[in-house]
Amino acid sequence: MLIATPQSMHFEEALPLQSGATLRAYDLSYETYGRLNADRSNAVLICHALNASHHVAGVYEGQPKSEGWWDTMIGPGKPVDTNHFFVIGVNNLGSCFGSTGPMQTNPDTGKIYGADFPVVTVQDWVDAQARLMDALGIQTLAAVMGGSLGGMQALSWTLQYPDRVRHAVVVASAPNLTAENIAFNEVARRAIVTDPDFCEGHYAEHGVLPKRGLRIARMIGHITYLSDDVMNEKFGRQLREISQAHPSGYKFSTQDVEFQIESYLRYQGDKFSEYFDANTYLLITRALDYFDPAAAFGGDLSAALKQATAQFLLVSFTTDWRFAPARSREIVKALLDNQIDVSYAEIDAPHGHDAFLLEDPRYLGVVRSYFQSRVAA
Amino acid sequence: MLIATPQSMHFEEALPLQSGATLRAYDLSYETYGRLNADRSNAVLICHALNASHHVAGVYEGQPKSEGWWDTMIGPGKPVDTNHFFVIGVNNLGSCFGSTGPMQTNPDTGKIYGADFPVVTVQDWVDAQARLMDALGIQTLAAVMGGSLGGMQALSWTLQYPDRVRHAVVVASAPNLTAENIAFNEVARRAIVTDPDFCEGHYAEHGVLPKRGLRIARMIGHITYLSDDVMNEKFGRQLREISQAHPSGYKFSTQDVEFQIESYLRYQGDKFSEYFDANTYLLITRALDYFDPAAAFGGDLSAALKQATAQFLLVSFTTDWRFAPARSREIVKALLDNQIDVSYAEIDAPHGHDAFLLEDPRYLGVVRSYFQSRVAA
Repeated sequence: MLIATPQSMHFEEALPLQSGATLRAYDLSYETYGRLNADRSNAVLICHALNASHHVAGVYEGQPKSEGWWDTMIGPGKPVDTNHFFVIGVNNLGSCFGSTGPMQTNPDTGKIYGADFPVVTVQDWVDAQARLMDALGIQTLAAVMGGSLGGMQALSWTLQYPDRVRHAVVVASAPNLTAENIAFNEVARRAIVTDPDFCEGHYAEHGVLPKRGLRIARMIGHITYLSDDVMNEKFGRQLREISQAHPSGYKFSTQDVEFQIESYLRYQGDKFSEYFDANTYLLITRALDYFDPAAAFGGDLSAALKQATAQFLLVSFTTDWRFAPARSREIVKALLDNQIDVSYAEIDAPHGHDAFLLEDPRYLGVVRSYFQSRVAA
Repeated sequence: MLIATPQSMHFEEALPLQSGATLRAYDLSYETYGRLNADRSNAVLICHALNASHHVAGVYEGQPKSEGWWDTMIGPGKPVDTNHFFVIGVNNLGSCFGSTGPMQTNPDTGKIYGADFPVVTVQDWVDAQARLMDALGIQTLAAVMGGSLGGMQALSWTLQYPDRVRHAVVVASAPNLTAENIAFNEVARRAIVTDPDFCEGHYAEHGVLPKRGLRIARMIGHITYLSDDVMNEKFGRQLREISQAHPSGYKFSTQDVEFQIESYLRYQGDKFSEYFDANTYLLITRALDYFDPAAAFGGDLSAALKQATAQFLLVSFTTDWRFAPARSREIVKALLDNQIDVSYAEIDAPHGHDAFLLEDPRYLGVVRSYFQSRVAA
């Protein structure tokens, strides 16, 4: 069993952000698994998506249920094999799991940042990650890898630091969000911001938490992570309990839970609202909205990816309607336009966007094979 | 120009509801267009969906912009031609546009019903509509017609009152909701119920309105009414205004509107929260959740539709992911299993679920042809 140990690195040098703002001294939480080899050529950086963290693989000492969020993928003998690779997980700026973010104290005011935490983008995260690589003595990454928003970071690495990345593994991702993607993010943000306990983002000062908004945000998110099919299979129209009062089994209530799917969503919303920070939710969904490397090239993704020199593996999942396979194929096409080496696997998985976190032997096999035959070579 | 005149009918006899509760004396708002013929054989009942009303066609005197919600479909010379048919629009019980609902006074308590209004189902609505037909002297309907939730009512008419319906026109509908459909309804309801101004459904007594919740509910609804494609075409990643402060044009804000799609959704949410009643939203989404004629037959839709004797037209739209064509095809298949006469048109329209309210010549042509060649014959 891989035992993980969270670490933290302090950076004194201010970080200029894409917005024009600057983040003064900051900390990054990270974990590493495996050993950096003598020529420092076996480092793999894992980038996280919305609600994940630097705890990517393994468990914490004495906490057998504390598996990292990509523990199926990363570890000794796993597709990204920590017997061969030195794997780094890092928590992004603006998050709520240890790296500097809105729940921490603003050195300029001595107060908790809250809504004053500057807007951060995928580009900013990659810049911060590059500084962490500097500090760890890693000039070139064997690979940078991520799913969903993490895949956007992997893609951005190849554009911001082309000579520092040999391989990019981009899973269930997209070159930018569609209007529908932005729409779901916006509803979730409005649910949070219009919660009276949001207090314009300074809820910490008021000793409250906008849990109602966070619950709604998470429920919306969950619907978009699952496919219609898997929801029907898992929950269908199943009632949570059969009322004896009526042959239909219904309780005839607008507010009580009737269907299992309602119970599931409420549970997911409640759980999330207990541990996730509302300002972080706003920041991270906005980073998703803003990511669009083609924008500076008049929308021409092929032109945008010209600067990349890494080799790529892209993976998508057929039932993922949040980041549909067609979006991955846009990236594949733009890479091919630039004669960039790219492998692409479209996995016929029923689980929707969530599939990128699940144990599917075909998916894990593709990644294993890529790391063995290409990254390790 | 068709001039519409809203009417109201009072019913003294209590209505037993599917839940076991009873609705005491109640009113139904309705409108009629065209003239009932001598043998009373040309009546067409139109059933409405979530936020519509009895105002189906025409305009109100002196209000040229007050077109009914299906004015493209119904009127003189239109597909459902009021020169030939006597068309009735009726507002459902529990709604907020005139028929007895949660905004009105509970005769038992002398207080506004609010959350005490009983849960009503598609079956109850059809029973109430049948009484209105009795009162109008209509024994048999030439056709009953509706889209979405309205289509569920049309289908239910053929099962509850098989000998009173000659034709059923079921547009963009489904034999029941999927888990995903219920999930979206549930998030919308939770947004309303957890709005502190909901006051357990008795906001009227407290002089407040749960507008925040209604806004979120409507924003979620709107996303599901549109197709991904039409959203990309209409809004894409277009910014509402281009910030001059940064080459990206972004304002870098988590709360301000950046993208046009955000502006559109906020506008729709605001507008809706001004006129729609929160308790009605809960009731109507629950009626959607509960509708499932196959349930009493162990999930066997063919067995459930055995009692139907009407002839059917079903219409669906290729990009409708809320009530996908596959759901309409389930109904078609179950009707065919019973040797029931059914015509089916799947319209290749880009607009998603909203298509059923829009002016598409192929769609309107199919309905026109069906009414001319089948219903009028």
